Amino acid sequence: MRLKAKLTGIESGSVFVVMLNPQDAAELGVHSTDRVKVSNKGREAVCIVDISKSWVNRGEIGVYKEVESSSMIKTADIIDVYPAGAPRSLEFITKKMNGARLSKQEMFAIVKDTVDRKLSDIELTAFVSALHFRGMSMDETVALSTSMAETGKALGIKEKIIVDKHSLGGVPGDKTTMLVVPIIAAAGYTIPKTSSRAITSAAGTADRVECLCPVNLGAGEILRTVEKTNGCMAWGGAVDLAPADDAFIQVEYPLSIDPLLLPSVMSKKKAVGATHVVIDMPTGRGAKLKTIGEAHTLAKDFIELGKQMGIVVNCVLTFGEQPIGHAVGPALEAREALSAISNLAAPPDLVEKVVNIAGSLLELAGEKNGKDLAYKLLKSGSAERKLRQIIEAQGGDPKIKPDGIGIGSHVAEIRSKTDGTIWWIANHDIVKIAREAGTPKDKGSGILLRKKIGDTVKKGEVIMEIYSENDRKLHDAIALAETLNPIGVYARPQDRMLIAKFPDGEEHKKFFVLER
Amino acid sequence: MRLKAKLTGIESGSVFVVMLNPQDAAELGVHSTDRVKVSNKGREAVCIVDISKSWVNRGEIGVYKEVESSSMIKTADIIDVYPAGAPRSLEFITKKMNGARLSKQEMFAIVKDTVDRKLSDIELTAFVSALHFRGMSMDETVALSTSMAETGKALGIKEKIIVDKHSLGGVPGDKTTMLVVPIIAAAGYTIPKTSSRAITSAAGTADRVECLCPVNLGAGEILRTVEKTNGCMAWGGAVDLAPADDAFIQVEYPLSIDPLLLPSVMSKKKAVGATHVVIDMPTGRGAKLKTIGEAHTLAKDFIELGKQMGIVVNCVLTFGEQPIGHAVGPALEAREALSAISNLAAPPDLVEKVVNIAGSLLELAGEKNGKDLAYKLLKSGSAERKLRQIIEAQGGDPKIKPDGIGIGSHVAEIRSKTDGTIWWIANHDIVKIAREAGTPKDKGSGILLRKKIGDTVKKGEVIMEIYSENDRKLHDAIALAETLNPIGVYARPQDRMLIAKFPDGEEHKKFFVLER
Repeated sequence: MRLKAKLTGIESGSVFVVMLNPQDAAELGVHSTDRVKVSNKGREAVCIVDISKSWVNRGEIGVYKEVESSSMIKTADIIDVYPAGAPRSLEFITKKMNGARLSKQEMFAIVKDTVDRKLSDIELTAFVSALHFRGMSMDETVALSTSMAETGKALGIKEKIIVDKHSLGGVPGDKTTMLVVPIIAAAGYTIPKTSSRAITSAAGTADRVECLCPVNLGAGEILRTVEKTNGCMAWGGAVDLAPADDAFIQVEYPLSIDPLLLPSVMSKKKAVGATHVVIDMPTGRGAKLKTIGEAHTLAKDFIELGKQMGIVVNCVLTFGEQPIGHAVGPALEAREALSAISNLAAPPDLVEKVVNIAGSLLELAGEKNGKDLAYKLLKSGSAERKLRQIIEAQGGDPKIKPDGIGIGSHVAEIRSKTDGTIWWIANHDIVKIAREAGTPKDKGSGILLRKKIGDTVKKGEVIMEIYSENDRKLHDAIALAETLNPIGVYARPQDRMLIAKFPDGEEHKKFFVLER
Repeated sequence: MRLKAKLTGIESGSVFVVMLNPQDAAELGVHSTDRVKVSNKGREAVCIVDISKSWVNRGEIGVYKEVESSSMIKTADIIDVYPAGAPRSLEFITKKMNGARLSKQEMFAIVKDTVDRKLSDIELTAFVSALHFRGMSMDETVALSTSMAETGKALGIKEKIIVDKHSLGGVPGDKTTMLVVPIIAAAGYTIPKTSSRAITSAAGTADRVECLCPVNLGAGEILRTVEKTNGCMAWGGAVDLAPADDAFIQVEYPLSIDPLLLPSVMSKKKAVGATHVVIDMPTGRGAKLKTIGEAHTLAKDFIELGKQMGIVVNCVLTFGEQPIGHAVGPALEAREALSAISNLAAPPDLVEKVVNIAGSLLELAGEKNGKDLAYKLLKSGSAERKLRQIIEAQGGDPKIKPDGIGIGSHVAEIRSKTDGTIWWIANHDIVKIAREAGTPKDKGSGILLRKKIGDTVKKGEVIMEIYSENDRKLHDAIALAETLNPIGVYARPQDRMLIAKFPDGEEHKKFFVLER
């Protein structure tokens, strides 16, 4: 069928889509969500059909931006349109839904069609749901991870040892990477670190580093930075590493599921060429992993997956029951990290975590007594010098001082309502309050914890400060802090033994922060 | 945030969608697939966010047709935009994904938000996938079915007994409804039958009936037809009965899954007010249900679900291993049905099926010896007179004769390549060939089977005819028939015992039509 092109000028955002009039669609024998092949002057594209009752008349075809670009379609071009079958990858998706194991070739076909935007939201969601419900064998996990790496760019760094780290996240204020990368680079090892921005948290590493220097580096800029300094701290979103992951996250995010955790992490590590990787697994109440048992199971999978992908993986379980250091929020955390690496003021838990992770990486790379070496590189000022080199190479000011980083000017103090000891700090509530104050968008907003677990406080003593760039947001954040009461101050926990009763008992009273 | 409206003029097709510039979205703290509330002169709508890099500038908001209409937005209107949380129903969807049972209230919330277009394709797919993987308890099935009926129109017919039938389908040429409805109506019972059009088959009942009279009736026209004649044969798509079903089918169709089979059927029966329903379950090789055991399990669920919804259900397992009668394709089937009801020429299997189904319905309604009564109403001409009344009431020509129904003028004969007996007819292949010939769009296209299972044939004898409205389509259909060889002619099946070997044996040679 020959149809006249009408351009929407709009990106569909994902898959190739064309709009047909209901009568033309019936003539072609296609329904909404079926596919057609469109052909314009020798350029062909397979598109998903959307039926429009009003926007396209009979004889017209509505063309979204992606199709317009790929097939070089202009308004009123006459386009050949034929019915087309679904891609084979859809067959593999339904196979997985039905409980079958997928081969390497089948996984690759699904990932390739995802990257090539040949699968609709419905089909991608079905795939991700199938992985969620059916799980994956180790062979499938390897196939998926490798396919995700192979369908994107590779950094192509020519070093025998390339180290990398990844944190499973979930703990606020975790600025560990900002100290680990300079330590490793100062030790002479290559660490091309890419990080994410906050989605549901108060700050991602990319948001924190951006308070010191630009992070939107392309592959070329990453390579030049690493060549000059051994390391970098870039935002992963500006490089096309394992791009299928972005499409899968688009589905996982609204559903709060994460069946691609292992492939998502390891495909990116493969794409940067990492040979030795440490996975930080924050564990405990309020973290993503609640128990050592859970963490151990996951760690074994990471190590096995690494082995099969040619990457040596070590996993480090870290205490995840409260924020790392005192600061939560991009600028406050950048200040704290810069102070710590400059040996001005360093929270002991941050330093302890940093030298453990960096130490593990150094030992993986072949060093003895990694933790001591990491500590020495930190205390001697080598790490600070390396950080400043990296800042300069990424286009920031290498002379930047902690108090040169702007923070919110609207500040409130939250005080303890009682005498006692701090027994818990609710990570999720701290994040909610920081976000209410403006993070991650307002970089200067956030929280400074003045007390941490185990500290004793007097009634009326300041336990935390809220920073905001904006007075209204500060007041919203204060109100939320009053409601959530994120820091637990009690005499002794064992004085209140009852947590909850079912079915008709009281709701969980938040005596401890126990996950539901 | 206040943004200037820019209208796309395009329907998103499902959910409410607005487009934001990436910087405005960051300012609002929302990501793609998050929600915002848009407010224009007191009219509010919750919309899903799409991020557009090029189509909307900072300060603009792109508005799809559905949002434009619901909030009466005009170009350049200044719209208030706030971040909005996800609807509660999304929480229930993730609850179901995690294996929980949903309450009546929770199911209702999901169905309501589906009908109100508040859920994205991703979220709807997650729900349908969760039902596919997790299954439903009977309580959940009742809640879902009732919610689907309650969120749509009800016909509101005031009769104590309203009967209805439904076929699970899968067998080509099944024109049973076209004879059952007139028989039941002639017996004095109310049967407001709505049917679907073909999606993957060669003809739906609505397509067949449309060869006799219009079928796109609104609720008012259905009521008037039923008042006049006791029955109707309308297309279900023009009435808003259980509209959530259409949204669910939009997801099920590309994935070839059908977890909502029971609610889909029974919600529509509830919406038409049916009190007594017969479910026809074609069973056997080549049908949807392969074994009596499978059919029995499903039948028990239908009966139990009916009981809980206040509908008396009987299930009738029918032989589904070959097409019903000889004709496949809308017009050819309409001819065959009209011939049969006029006692001109009636295939015995069609008559046998019709009087069994109609008989069951009559007995459900309180008659004795339903099958005999049905046969009498058919043979006496009462059913034919009733059919012609219905045709007239729906706006067709009551005097229509079988050969007054136009069929394709391009005809080919397919001949047997060997002497033997017909052991099987492959339903799926018959459908594929009929569709290649032009069905369901070209109503005059289709297949006439000259032989059925058990008939003996000579080499060179005609076993089927292909009809098409178009010479090219006829030739494509002939070629496909040669490839698929849909009719199995053999001396004796037991002469070839080997079906297949694994892993390295031959592929299944199609000696019998066994499903994989």
